[in-house]
Amino acid sequence: MAMNLAQKLIKSHLVSGSLEPGSPIEIKIDQTLAQDGTGTLVMLELEALGLSQIKTELSAQYVDHNLLQTDFKNADDHLFLQSACRKFGLWFSRPGNGVSHPVHMACFDIPGKTLLGADSHTCAAGSMGMLAIGAGGLQVAMAIAGVPFALKMPKVLGVKLEGELPPWVSAKDIILEMLRRQTVKGCVNKIVEYHGPGLANLTAMDRHVIANMGQEMGTTASVFPADEAVKAFLKQQHRESDYVEMKADEGASYDEEDTINLSDLEPLIACPSSPDKVVTVREVAGRPIYQSYIGSSANPGLRDFAIPARIVAGRRLADDVSFDINPTSRQLLEELSRSGDLTKLLEVGARLHQTGCGGCIGMGQAPATGRISLRTVPRNFPGRSGTADDQVYLCSPETATASALKGVITDPRDLDMDYPSFSEPEYLPDIRPLLQPPQEIPVAVELIKGPNIKPLPNFDKLPNILTGPLLLKAGDNVSTDEILPAGAEILPLRSNIPAISRYTFSRIDENFYQRAMKLNGDCFVVGGENYGQGSSREHAAVSSRFLGVRCIIAKSMARIHRRNLINFGVLPLLFENFDDYDRIEQDSILEIDKPIAQLKSNNSVKLLIKSSGETINLRSDLSADEIEVLEAGGMINQVREKYLSNEK
Amino acid sequence: MAMNLAQKLIKSHLVSGSLEPGSPIEIKIDQTLAQDGTGTLVMLELEALGLSQIKTELSAQYVDHNLLQTDFKNADDHLFLQSACRKFGLWFSRPGNGVSHPVHMACFDIPGKTLLGADSHTCAAGSMGMLAIGAGGLQVAMAIAGVPFALKMPKVLGVKLEGELPPWVSAKDIILEMLRRQTVKGCVNKIVEYHGPGLANLTAMDRHVIANMGQEMGTTASVFPADEAVKAFLKQQHRESDYVEMKADEGASYDEEDTINLSDLEPLIACPSSPDKVVTVREVAGRPIYQSYIGSSANPGLRDFAIPARIVAGRRLADDVSFDINPTSRQLLEELSRSGDLTKLLEVGARLHQTGCGGCIGMGQAPATGRISLRTVPRNFPGRSGTADDQVYLCSPETATASALKGVITDPRDLDMDYPSFSEPEYLPDIRPLLQPPQEIPVAVELIKGPNIKPLPNFDKLPNILTGPLLLKAGDNVSTDEILPAGAEILPLRSNIPAISRYTFSRIDENFYQRAMKLNGDCFVVGGENYGQGSSREHAAVSSRFLGVRCIIAKSMARIHRRNLINFGVLPLLFENFDDYDRIEQDSILEIDKPIAQLKSNNSVKLLIKSSGETINLRSDLSADEIEVLEAGGMINQVREKYLSNEK
Repeated sequence: MAMNLAQKLIKSHLVSGSLEPGSPIEIKIDQTLAQDGTGTLVMLELEALGLSQIKTELSAQYVDHNLLQTDFKNADDHLFLQSACRKFGLWFSRPGNGVSHPVHMACFDIPGKTLLGADSHTCAAGSMGMLAIGAGGLQVAMAIAGVPFALKMPKVLGVKLEGELPPWVSAKDIILEMLRRQTVKGCVNKIVEYHGPGLANLTAMDRHVIANMGQEMGTTASVFPADEAVKAFLKQQHRESDYVEMKADEGASYDEEDTINLSDLEPLIACPSSPDKVVTVREVAGRPIYQSYIGSSANPGLRDFAIPARIVAGRRLADDVSFDINPTSRQLLEELSRSGDLTKLLEVGARLHQTGCGGCIGMGQAPATGRISLRTVPRNFPGRSGTADDQVYLCSPETATASALKGVITDPRDLDMDYPSFSEPEYLPDIRPLLQPPQEIPVAVELIKGPNIKPLPNFDKLPNILTGPLLLKAGDNVSTDEILPAGAEILPLRSNIPAISRYTFSRIDENFYQRAMKLNGDCFVVGGENYGQGSSREHAAVSSRFLGVRCIIAKSMARIHRRNLINFGVLPLLFENFDDYDRIEQDSILEIDKPIAQLKSNNSVKLLIKSSGETINLRSDLSADEIEVLEAGGMINQVREKYLSNEK
Repeated sequence: MAMNLAQKLIKSHLVSGSLEPGSPIEIKIDQTLAQDGTGTLVMLELEALGLSQIKTELSAQYVDHNLLQTDFKNADDHLFLQSACRKFGLWFSRPGNGVSHPVHMACFDIPGKTLLGADSHTCAAGSMGMLAIGAGGLQVAMAIAGVPFALKMPKVLGVKLEGELPPWVSAKDIILEMLRRQTVKGCVNKIVEYHGPGLANLTAMDRHVIANMGQEMGTTASVFPADEAVKAFLKQQHRESDYVEMKADEGASYDEEDTINLSDLEPLIACPSSPDKVVTVREVAGRPIYQSYIGSSANPGLRDFAIPARIVAGRRLADDVSFDINPTSRQLLEELSRSGDLTKLLEVGARLHQTGCGGCIGMGQAPATGRISLRTVPRNFPGRSGTADDQVYLCSPETATASALKGVITDPRDLDMDYPSFSEPEYLPDIRPLLQPPQEIPVAVELIKGPNIKPLPNFDKLPNILTGPLLLKAGDNVSTDEILPAGAEILPLRSNIPAISRYTFSRIDENFYQRAMKLNGDCFVVGGENYGQGSSREHAAVSSRFLGVRCIIAKSMARIHRRNLINFGVLPLLFENFDDYDRIEQDSILEIDKPIAQLKSNNSVKLLIKSSGETINLRSDLSADEIEVLEAGGMINQVREKYLSNEK
């Protein structure tokens, strides 16, 4: 039977299960990546597991998040990660090399391989004909230890691209159009596979832009074929020999289908404060802006910086605009410098920032009070920029640059100039020699742990009768940024669970931590639809669990956070009837009798509201293995028993 | 009578007084500068004074300190400063243009002029044949309002430079040699004037390095002649027409004299944690380092970055070293990019940071716990880097770079290579068009004040009987970094005195703020020698006053902080007998009866220790005008009455 590319990629890595959508499968993971914000826990987990050497083909650790170093904590983390790479046999990419996704793409992406990354935007590698999935750190640690990755076989949404992008419209507008259609939850448990004649004019980096922000629609993975564009990219990176053609079989079909005619697109923009609040730029044109921000893994290509440079060349930036240039990688920065495009940006008054994730994760560059910031980044969740009441719009580099010149939101087609020409150079600087490879002969390496690096807390099993108050009732689309914020103050605490837990739910309820500490016992949290969307940070789950949250009840849940909750022994349950959401009040005492037994018997549980004596039916979509993890009190407990006993 | 250049500069600007060392003088100020860390208070002070337009020839406001923007506060400050420049008629330099001192040098330094700057390193402009003095923000505000600057005529120390620097030895080693000789307090109330044949091979930027760190010896100003080197610099900046020859009269003499033979110098390094703990690099060679840091106003020249680039070209950085490149100005960064030197740095693995003050003021790039950081910055006071127990060494770019390659402190002469050649380009990119000029026709401009920008508190006059506990007894060389730290957490509070005051003395006594709030009344602080050295931040004085500190008693006091205390109504008094320092215990209740009357009658006061009934004789070196300021309860009160009544 003719298979689409997503199916082929899964089939070639299938360890168990069938390709029937919804059925549990396990797949072999070839490569992993982590960044420093998630990687310190991954390494602590590898240490807790007692791993000697990685069991993947390749695993890489990047340092791109915590680069501000306002005290010792970030620097200590970097040294810890470097020592852990030496100990366990990972590649180490030092601060300054760039954001994990484009650097991994340049150095390690190979068509046909699987990649599991402790960063939600790992799906970007789908641009290279890979199956690339973001996951919580613990699952990446497990993959490093050789454990297959378990998930439910997703549906595959085939998106046929036709036509050709008009001038001033670029890849970002394609993914914004997808978000307009799909919203932030339209692709949960789906793989989005792009195909069709419209691909012909999209470079591998253009596809990276689209694949990356697949995460914003809730996709499990974004998939593109590996074709001539991928071959040209690999040649640019001096590794054409890694090229393998990957494409759907002739006549393959999809579980769902959609079509975008690129010729019909115009510049789009996502309004505050959700990536799916997409309108045409012209609908909001004229609003004064404070900031125009170029960079992040959502627009990491050379053209995403070179086109802005060629737009501004010889012009004058609006006096009131901060034009922030965030190079995504060292390779890109070197090339911009060599080509003269960097000079064009500097001459006009742009601010050049350190290579890395920067303001995209709230690590600097926060906008002024009440002012508009235009950004090429993937997300604009409330407060993610660092400014609590921020007004962040997501758009293409072209729109951001036109607006920086005019001082107001501007459709780039309204600039009085021709669309600048850009062609990809045949070769780019070879960046791989700057990464530190695993040692060929492993030697005893001591982990370097600064005073902020604390061991993982031990978490006990679920009680036989789970009782506690509903400590927080939240609404729809709660993101992991709201469960546990990032930003310059909090990100440096990623290696210290007790310390970072103070900020749990602080964006929603600033007294949550105090109330949880006062309770000092088990409790529940309720959410609406798409609970836990956004970043893959497992700290959102770990800190919830650390404060006693044993069960989350929601209308629907985002894939990665749901699994992170399971990994740390927190029950993720769903309302059978959405109306029941309104029947529970904050502070009600709730109870579940023998939760594990109920789940085992029929994958559902009865929730008792103790004050009224009423019960509510909750369903779960847990696999047998996931129930086993919950029964063990989390994945570390489970894997210690199940896998480590083998290794020893 | 033949005059030295310092005397000529003062005489040409003298408003009152005589050139007799120690006698009170007033001088006309031609230009002022401020940075954002000090400038927001300057602007609030101008507003409080009701100024309409600046009365200097030129005043400029830079944004170089608070660039991290981890929330809305920094960005709000930038918009406030921009609006204030428009209102009062100052030049505005946007974030990304660079550090105030090299940018002011490139754009505005004119030989023969006076410059008062709300930044202690303003003395750097002495490299251009100017009289350039750092001062508290309030005095800069007064200068902007046309008030002459009052000081005591300093002694002039003439330093004759002979010979020529050997390869691998550069300007930084000259000022480190000066610090070795003079210590951090050897030049208090002195101007250091450099002269002699050794100047011939020092460019204007080399002289900037030396002039800048004059501050670290306590100098009032550093002075160099304006000669061919200055002319070449002005030509480079497209303003040769601003050149005026400035030099000492033939046969001029100095109050004190010293000589340095440049040919005898070798690479030097200041050990933790004081700029005067200077030894030869070879004495500490071999110690492993975590960080090598290039940048800051202490090494802001093109050669300070180009030489490191040419040293590392084609080599490999030590795996464990963070090689941090902090471009001092947009002009420099553009030129490094154009020349290919930037590529050399990036290729080897350097981290390129945002243009500005960066880690020098603890705004990022803090070193790891217990690890050594080599920096080309001017100061290594404890904790200034952001890491409390830091190990910061100060050295030349050559030493920092050699050590980055080797991973251990390395004398650059021990690299197996020839000293790279460098020659200054004839022209540099013209940066001035990127600064925003004052509006030719002033228009009504509203000041833009974000929620963190608070008005200056009102401070009342000294009580007739000053009584209170000795709330803190500190040791020698207390820096303004210890009185009120900078760094990423605290700097953003510079526009909010009540908020920033929480951190007063926190580096010395973390409970000081709580004790002061509990006391809620007048109190005393005692220090040893050189109290208040370092940064010019008037916040150190304002926050002391805000917490009730009405009198500081020390063995000796640094010039700028002493005057800041006076400006905000805090008595700066000195022990007549140093032994008396040991006679006062912390928490003793102290009392001064009619302090102003005592000062007016004989510039000294009797301090009563109430518990023992003993008295201690304290002297003061206050001028009549300074006593008037103290009597008024601070300079704002005084000037409101004395000058503003004229304007209205």
